Amino acid sequence: MTNKSYNFQLSEKFIINNFLKKLNLNTTGTFNFENDAAFLKTSSKIKTVVTTDTIVENIDFFTNDPPESIAQKIMCVNLSDISAMGAKPKTYTLNLSINSTIDKTWLKRFSKQLSKIQKKYKMYLLGGDISRSKEISLTITCFGESILKNIIKQKNSRLGDDIWVTGDLGNSFLGYKMFKKPKLKFEKKHIKKLKNFYLYPEPCMFGSKASKYINAAVDISDGFYGDLQKILHGKFGAKISRDSIPISDIAKKFLTDNANKIKFSDILFWGDDYELLFTSFKKNRKKLLTLAKRNKVKISLVGSIINKTGIYDDSLRPIINTNSFDHFC
Amino acid sequence: MTNKSYNFQLSEKFIINNFLKKLNLNTTGTFNFENDAAFLKTSSKIKTVVTTDTIVENIDFFTNDPPESIAQKIMCVNLSDISAMGAKPKTYTLNLSINSTIDKTWLKRFSKQLSKIQKKYKMYLLGGDISRSKEISLTITCFGESILKNIIKQKNSRLGDDIWVTGDLGNSFLGYKMFKKPKLKFEKKHIKKLKNFYLYPEPCMFGSKASKYINAAVDISDGFYGDLQKILHGKFGAKISRDSIPISDIAKKFLTDNANKIKFSDILFWGDDYELLFTSFKKNRKKLLTLAKRNKVKISLVGSIINKTGIYDDSLRPIINTNSFDHFC
Repeated sequence: MTNKSYNFQLSEKFIINNFLKKLNLNTTGTFNFENDAAFLKTSSKIKTVVTTDTIVENIDFFTNDPPESIAQKIMCVNLSDISAMGAKPKTYTLNLSINSTIDKTWLKRFSKQLSKIQKKYKMYLLGGDISRSKEISLTITCFGESILKNIIKQKNSRLGDDIWVTGDLGNSFLGYKMFKKPKLKFEKKHIKKLKNFYLYPEPCMFGSKASKYINAAVDISDGFYGDLQKILHGKFGAKISRDSIPISDIAKKFLTDNANKIKFSDILFWGDDYELLFTSFKKNRKKLLTLAKRNKVKISLVGSIINKTGIYDDSLRPIINTNSFDHFC
Repeated sequence: MTNKSYNFQLSEKFIINNFLKKLNLNTTGTFNFENDAAFLKTSSKIKTVVTTDTIVENIDFFTNDPPESIAQKIMCVNLSDISAMGAKPKTYTLNLSINSTIDKTWLKRFSKQLSKIQKKYKMYLLGGDISRSKEISLTITCFGESILKNIIKQKNSRLGDDIWVTGDLGNSFLGYKMFKKPKLKFEKKHIKKLKNFYLYPEPCMFGSKASKYINAAVDISDGFYGDLQKILHGKFGAKISRDSIPISDIAKKFLTDNANKIKFSDILFWGDDYELLFTSFKKNRKKLLTLAKRNKVKISLVGSIINKTGIYDDSLRPIINTNSFDHFC
C-alpha cells in the first residue's frame, strides 16, 4: 500500500517482535513465541499443547500435487511441532480455503488421506471452517497432550549437551530436486522413493517417547542448520561432526553422482525433513539409544553444545556463523 | 480439475457430510459438526471450547478496508461462536497469510486493534503462523472456557421454547449498502454510524452470562432466518412475531425512506450481525430479562418453537419454508 520496499524487511521475526509479541501478555504457555507450539493453561495436570500451520498453493505445494500429498504435508508440519514439544497428538481443526479447481474426487482423496493419518496417530478432527478463495490454502490447528514437566522447550539446551537427530536428513531436498527434474543424475530405481520423500513427508513422533531425556528440541522444517540455530538461540554454539550427520544410501549415491553440482552442505540448508533435532545430557546416551531402538527410530549423535556462538566442525572451523531463520509457531 | 459443474454442488454441508463428518469419530465435543464450535476433552471440570474461522480478501473483506476493520471482523466471527457455546473467550491463535500490499503501517494498525479487542475480552494470543500468499487470508482459532453443563448446543431447542434475539438486527446489512453507495437514501448524520456497523461488528457476549437459561443458541452470521433454521434443524418450526424483531431507529428510518427498494425481510436474510439468537423455556423470561438488564444487553422475545416445520408469522402464514444455509464450524 505504501512503501513496497518495506516488505523485504517484514520477516516473520520482525512481524512477531514488533507487532505480535506484546499480544501474548507474557502468559505461561506461549513461551514468548520462541517455541513452535504453545499450551493452554488448564486446571488439570494434563496440558493441551496447541500448534497451527498454514500451507498455501504455489508456495508450499503445487496446484496439481496429489491431494494425498497436500493432506500429508499440512498434517506433517503440525505433527512434528507437537512431537518437538514432547506431546502426543490428540485432535485438530481444519480450515480449508478452496477454489473451483477442487472437485469431489479431490476432496475424497484428500479426506481419505487425513483419515489414514488420523488412524495412525489416534487423532480425530475437532472442527474447522471452509471458505472460498482464489488460491487454495489450508490451516490445521493441532492439539496434543503432555504432563507439564515433560513439555520440551526449544530454547532449553544446556552447555555440554549432546546434539542428536532422528532419521536421515536431506531426503526431502532430493525429492524436491527429483520433482523439478533438473539436469541431475538419478538412479531410475530411486525415482519413486525420492518423489515420495518430497510428497509424503513423515513426522518423527519420538518427542513424546523421549521427552524426559530431552532438554531442547525442534522439528527440522527449515534445514538442519536453520533449526540448529533456533536451539542455540544466539546464546550457545554447536560443534558438529559432519561425518556423523545421517543421510540415506540414496542420498550418498546421489551426492557421488552429482559431486560437482550438489554439495553435502546444500542438503543441510534445506528444510522439510520433519525429523527431530534435540539436545540431551551426555549421561542419557545409553537410555536414548535403547529407547530409540525399542521405538524403531534411528537416532544419531551429531555434535555437542559449546560455549562459543556459531556452528563449527570437529576442528572448530566455522561452518556457519550467522544465518537468519525465524518462525512464529 | 474434472467436471466443474460439480462445484456448484459442493456446499459446505455437502463437503462435511460426504468427506469430513466421518473424521470426527463420533467424539464427544465435536457435536457431530452441527455446532459452530467444539470442546476439547480435558480431565478437569473446565472444558476448553475451540472455534476457528477464516476470512479471505475480496470475499469477507475488501483489500482496502482499514486493517482495524479486518482485525475486528476475524475476532468477531470467532468470539460470537464462543459466546453462542456459552463460553468465555480465553485465548486464540492467529494464522496470517499476507502479500506484498501489507506494510508496517498495516501491521501496526492491525495488531493495535487486536490488542484493543484482547483487552476488552481479557484474552491473549497463544501462537500462530505467518505465510506468504497472493491474496490476504486470516484464520483465528479461538479458545473459550465453560463448565460442561453450561455449554450450549445449537440443536437443543425444545418444543414451546421462547425465541430471543440480542441487540438490533440489520445494522450490518445497512452498513454494507451504505458502503456500496447504491442509489438509496441515507441520512447524512447516519453515514459514519452505518459504515461502522459494517466495518466494526461487535460480538454479543451474553452467551456465557445466560447459558444456564439457554437451551439452544447460534450467533447471527448468516441472517436471522438462516440462523433460525440452524436451531430448528428440520425438526421443529418457529412462529415469529415480525413486529417484535428489534431493529434500530436508523434502520426504521432507512426502511421508510427506501420503502420501494428495500424490504424489512431483506435485512433478515442478510448476515453478519453477530448478535445471538437463542431459545429458552418460557419460565425463564423474567430471569433472562433481569440478567440482560444487569449486563446492559438488549434482548427481545421474537417468537416460539412450534411443532410444525417451517417459519411462520403470528397468523401461521409461512414466512419461509426451506432455505439452505450450512456451516461447518
